[in-house]
Amino acid sequence: MRIRTFIFLLFFMVAWDVHAALQHPCLLLTAEGVETIKAHRGKLALFDQTIDRIVRDADKAIEMGIVVPEPLDNGGGYSHEKHKDNYYALYYAGIAYQITGEGKYARFVRDMLVQYAEMIPGLGPHPCNSPDKAGRLFFQPLNDCVWSCFASMAYDYVYDWLSEEEHALFEKDVFRPMAEFISNGNAYNRQVFDKMHNHGTWANVAVGMIGHVIGDETFVEQSLYGLHKDGTGGYMKQLDVLFSPDGYYMEGAYYQRYALWPFVVYAQILEHNHPEMHVSEYRDGIFKKATRALINMSYNTELFRINDAVYQTLASLDAVNAVDASYLFDSSQKDLLSVALAQNNFIVSDGGLRTALAIAHNETEPFLFKSCFLRDGADGTQGGLGVMRSGEGERHTALLFKATAHGQSHGHYDKLSVLLNDNGHEILQDYGSVRYLNLEPREGGRYTKENSSWALQTIAHNTVTVDGKSHFDGNFELSSRHASHVNYYDFDHPECQVMSASENHAVPGVSMTRTIAMIKTDDAYPLILDIYKIKSEEKHQYDLPYYYVGTLSSTNFGMTRYPTQLSVLGQDNGYQHLWLEGKSAPLHKLAEMTWFNENRFYSLNTLADPEMELLFVRMGANDPNMNIRTDPGYIIRCPRADNYTFVSTLDIHGEYDLVAELTAEFETKVQDIELLLDNDQYTAVRISKVDGQKLLFVTLNGAYGTDSEHRITVDGKNYSWTGNYHLFINQ
Amino acid sequence: MRIRTFIFLLFFMVAWDVHAALQHPCLLLTAEGVETIKAHRGKLALFDQTIDRIVRDADKAIEMGIVVPEPLDNGGGYSHEKHKDNYYALYYAGIAYQITGEGKYARFVRDMLVQYAEMIPGLGPHPCNSPDKAGRLFFQPLNDCVWSCFASMAYDYVYDWLSEEEHALFEKDVFRPMAEFISNGNAYNRQVFDKMHNHGTWANVAVGMIGHVIGDETFVEQSLYGLHKDGTGGYMKQLDVLFSPDGYYMEGAYYQRYALWPFVVYAQILEHNHPEMHVSEYRDGIFKKATRALINMSYNTELFRINDAVYQTLASLDAVNAVDASYLFDSSQKDLLSVALAQNNFIVSDGGLRTALAIAHNETEPFLFKSCFLRDGADGTQGGLGVMRSGEGERHTALLFKATAHGQSHGHYDKLSVLLNDNGHEILQDYGSVRYLNLEPREGGRYTKENSSWALQTIAHNTVTVDGKSHFDGNFELSSRHASHVNYYDFDHPECQVMSASENHAVPGVSMTRTIAMIKTDDAYPLILDIYKIKSEEKHQYDLPYYYVGTLSSTNFGMTRYPTQLSVLGQDNGYQHLWLEGKSAPLHKLAEMTWFNENRFYSLNTLADPEMELLFVRMGANDPNMNIRTDPGYIIRCPRADNYTFVSTLDIHGEYDLVAELTAEFETKVQDIELLLDNDQYTAVRISKVDGQKLLFVTLNGAYGTDSEHRITVDGKNYSWTGNYHLFINQ
Repeated sequence: MRIRTFIFLLFFMVAWDVHAALQHPCLLLTAEGVETIKAHRGKLALFDQTIDRIVRDADKAIEMGIVVPEPLDNGGGYSHEKHKDNYYALYYAGIAYQITGEGKYARFVRDMLVQYAEMIPGLGPHPCNSPDKAGRLFFQPLNDCVWSCFASMAYDYVYDWLSEEEHALFEKDVFRPMAEFISNGNAYNRQVFDKMHNHGTWANVAVGMIGHVIGDETFVEQSLYGLHKDGTGGYMKQLDVLFSPDGYYMEGAYYQRYALWPFVVYAQILEHNHPEMHVSEYRDGIFKKATRALINMSYNTELFRINDAVYQTLASLDAVNAVDASYLFDSSQKDLLSVALAQNNFIVSDGGLRTALAIAHNETEPFLFKSCFLRDGADGTQGGLGVMRSGEGERHTALLFKATAHGQSHGHYDKLSVLLNDNGHEILQDYGSVRYLNLEPREGGRYTKENSSWALQTIAHNTVTVDGKSHFDGNFELSSRHASHVNYYDFDHPECQVMSASENHAVPGVSMTRTIAMIKTDDAYPLILDIYKIKSEEKHQYDLPYYYVGTLSSTNFGMTRYPTQLSVLGQDNGYQHLWLEGKSAPLHKLAEMTWFNENRFYSLNTLADPEMELLFVRMGANDPNMNIRTDPGYIIRCPRADNYTFVSTLDIHGEYDLVAELTAEFETKVQDIELLLDNDQYTAVRISKVDGQKLLFVTLNGAYGTDSEHRITVDGKNYSWTGNYHLFINQ
Repeated sequence: MRIRTFIFLLFFMVAWDVHAALQHPCLLLTAEGVETIKAHRGKLALFDQTIDRIVRDADKAIEMGIVVPEPLDNGGGYSHEKHKDNYYALYYAGIAYQITGEGKYARFVRDMLVQYAEMIPGLGPHPCNSPDKAGRLFFQPLNDCVWSCFASMAYDYVYDWLSEEEHALFEKDVFRPMAEFISNGNAYNRQVFDKMHNHGTWANVAVGMIGHVIGDETFVEQSLYGLHKDGTGGYMKQLDVLFSPDGYYMEGAYYQRYALWPFVVYAQILEHNHPEMHVSEYRDGIFKKATRALINMSYNTELFRINDAVYQTLASLDAVNAVDASYLFDSSQKDLLSVALAQNNFIVSDGGLRTALAIAHNETEPFLFKSCFLRDGADGTQGGLGVMRSGEGERHTALLFKATAHGQSHGHYDKLSVLLNDNGHEILQDYGSVRYLNLEPREGGRYTKENSSWALQTIAHNTVTVDGKSHFDGNFELSSRHASHVNYYDFDHPECQVMSASENHAVPGVSMTRTIAMIKTDDAYPLILDIYKIKSEEKHQYDLPYYYVGTLSSTNFGMTRYPTQLSVLGQDNGYQHLWLEGKSAPLHKLAEMTWFNENRFYSLNTLADPEMELLFVRMGANDPNMNIRTDPGYIIRCPRADNYTFVSTLDIHGEYDLVAELTAEFETKVQDIELLLDNDQYTAVRISKVDGQKLLFVTLNGAYGTDSEHRITVDGKNYSWTGNYHLFINQ
């Protein structure tokens, strides 16, 4: 505590001096910070690696020469990638100048900015977008913001080397036009600037960084409090609104990582220039919470692919930035050091140095991935995300249960969906987004139209679609008004972790409650119980898909396949993108489907029903540009029911080793599932395992509370417990 | 040389002693060998690990208790896997007894053999196979052979601990019946015993090991020289026939690994008991050549998946066995030590110890994966396999060009097929086999019927199918009579490695010559030129598929896809297993198709033709049990031509990094391809690269020879060279 106070005092003084003297650098680095970094040169192997890489990249950029192309191309195209390369080159050269003091780096930054100064004032809307939404250097203004952030830092780093005339030139023809375009360039940009959204954050921070580096108080105030400086927009409001009290960012893990960059960078800049704001401690340490939430939404370094997301990991520079800053803001988080160590990269900043120093001093502690619940919504009342984990290490089991708000423009219609990871792999997948990021031939690297027609739709997720229509009938406004409700969760008992959530708005007249239990028996891996209880006064069709990842091993029902012709499953709501490969009826009381992924087996056992249909589907129909992955899915269909409860177990088992040529325990460990009780108060399910063990799981369906006492009689036996759920073993 | 002589002398003396005294152990281990191993206990960390693991496994087996179940199940089923577990348990307990001298291990072997002695004499044909081909303990006799090999060793290891009565019992009711069944049990086994095939090898060696351990000279002689001891069958003839002079095993890499086990184990046993035979030096060191050939047929430890093959690596116990023995037989092969080090496992044998010792003495040298050519056929005249490599390390480029004989019962109709690996991954795949090894629910782990109807067929391979019919019309006898002809190969110049082969028998009236060049320009990765020249007097349809692995990035032709219905591509010859997903005509002079795999791009540019059709297909039609992987393919179809030459380049380029969010050089580096000359004498192709470089490649189409001088005039320019091919750069 005393150490933290001291740190803040130190920053306060440093920043005050800087501010008072209008010294440069004044953004992510300060003169004192640079001196400290230089004092450690050659003494911190890991941090030296980062600096060496940056200096090498700066040298390479100088060697390649400066090219500032006319902005013509989409994401992934030549001019797009070149302007991206350029902002990194500017930034690296700026750092290289600060560290080495060699004029060639400053000269490179100057010369490139001169070329931008010649180009920027004459730029109109980028040709690859509609003029009212187009950026200048890039097809969208978002990338202009990112460019401005990096270019501001580069300018800041070489500021003292430049002449007064150059200062005037760059301010007039580079930074002021960019800040004005971003904040106030047209109706679209004005709207984005005050919007509570990651594009808004980037816009605020770009303008704020420019404001700080050129000393324009208006830009700084607008960045903090919105275009009208009245607090209806701006960075501080974004901080209030976009993160939940647990640090969950509304749009999900992928965008959380992306959005954190401007948030934590600007926080460090504000700490340097306005230490009296104590931004780093804002909202009870929101940066720290958000960074930890991000890490908690990863599996084996990969970020959970919910909402619009493509593959991304904790090694991303954005995550490096978040970790270094979060450690700077609270250096009691020694477990962050193991994440930083795995990233093997640092930001050249006070935070990066401090993180590297602590690692060098052997302060690293492991980051323990535990189950956690992250509330959604600014006030934490918009549902939430449960991450249930079992086991340790990179092959542990992690189940994500999503019962959040819609997630802004990047949200999907995926109420009560689940994802499963195990053995280092995705086992039940969320498609993520149909997008080839930065791949120019694929619609300029932007979201493809199949992102809306497939990835957003309910049927693309491991949750129930009613009557073939997506939740909220795919209406964004409506979906944005209603979050799911989390009934309860309890992750305190590793032998039985449970979460229950309800969704009563997504489908008119239909209420859905899903309860997931992750049960650890004596078996090697956990057993998952999935109770999906639906209530309605009308009859509906209920489809519950499981997008399994792996290769089918066996089913206990005959597979009816379509040998020579395939047709689509439906006409709309995403169904038009699924080929129907097989359709079967259950033959036994349980419908069993087992697949393997790498060397492990996964068995889904579902309590069958005479009407039930088991569909094997494959993605990729109605996809003229081959944008959709051709992954398989298994849909359990209840064709017509009012009230209906899907009860399934998923057990993980066995070993399939092709190298050692050994196979063990390829059969499910679940012998029977009985739905013993299912009413408005309680659902009770008994699982009989092959080894003779009997698990009776009971959950409340209403009147939730951890203290209330309950008593039921099933199969002539009395069972009593306290709280929302109970697991009775062999009783 | 002197060292090797000394080693052989040493073995000679040791073995002679053993033999003279009828001492045990006398198979893979000798009393002296065991003493040496014991003398090194605790001093060799890696070898200790192996022994510790074996002792631990023996302890585990003892703890689990002995179960010898009635043989009822298929591969992967309970009794099958249990009898497999049992032979390993016997073997491990035997070794544990030798190393520790503890009676509990010998007792375990004895007790289990007693149970087998009670069961074996009463066994009839296994119920999971037709009675005339069934095994006893397993569904097929092959597994009985493997069981016998391991059980013989276990018996050998505890022989001295057992009583005379026990010797008599096990000889009478376990080993003699097994040896008699395997060699002479029925017509099928008699035929297999003398067949030149891996099943024959296993049978010979099983009977030979039993012969040695129970001291039956007849069994030993039969094992060496066939059922009639006349040299028409047996181990020595298998050695002559099944390997080419370069150590290539007729059935391909996957079975080479499997077959090597009995070959090298028996060689060591013969060295111990009949040192005068000098088996380890037989055929100029055939064991050593075969081991090196196996390693050379791997990429990033994985074995090339040609013919009937599933995933398998150099870490397989069979490969460990081959490496340890090969190093024992010629300890000048210091590069084998790096393979052994990566295997991180040893056989408890003289070879294993010697390998571990050499590693401990820092004698390890890297195994340099270089391009190589392996002749096929006992005399090396049955075509061959070219492996062309470029670059180093686990991400280097490796292209395999298959122009071999059929490959016995595990061969495919895949004349002149190619496979490509790069960046640590398969890039152009051979399907391998449709088989779920040891997965009981999948047809007992045996080859599925789709292995014949799909995987064997020509259309499943990256080579030309004529008129929709497989090579040799799928006739095994016919195909077994004709190997492809290798015209020439030259891997001595890394800037241009070339191989050319012809196939004149696979399709009546059609001759096919494929020439592959792997060219290394200034670009980061190699450029592959593929010239597939077909001659015929009649008109035919020619289909050339490329089974690319990865995700499509772009084409330069409009894709016509089937949005709501898919149909099969054909009726038979494997075509019935392909869905036709898209069909297009080329729009430009080159048909360009680019895909990415992980972070790298691959562009296939094909010289187009107005008649050409470009088909996008996906495997998995007519597959009632979902046995076939649903992988994509790209087929270039020439619908009607007599003489036709497919000319394509495949260039590897760029970087697609989703974590760093960077994309570079996603476009092909090939701008133009011109077929400047194509007659019976020469084919000349000019490749124009985007960077302006011009590559003129010329190959002979007959009258091959490395010394002959040639002169052509193309585009008004004269070119002259010596030899089979030439690459002119910017000339």
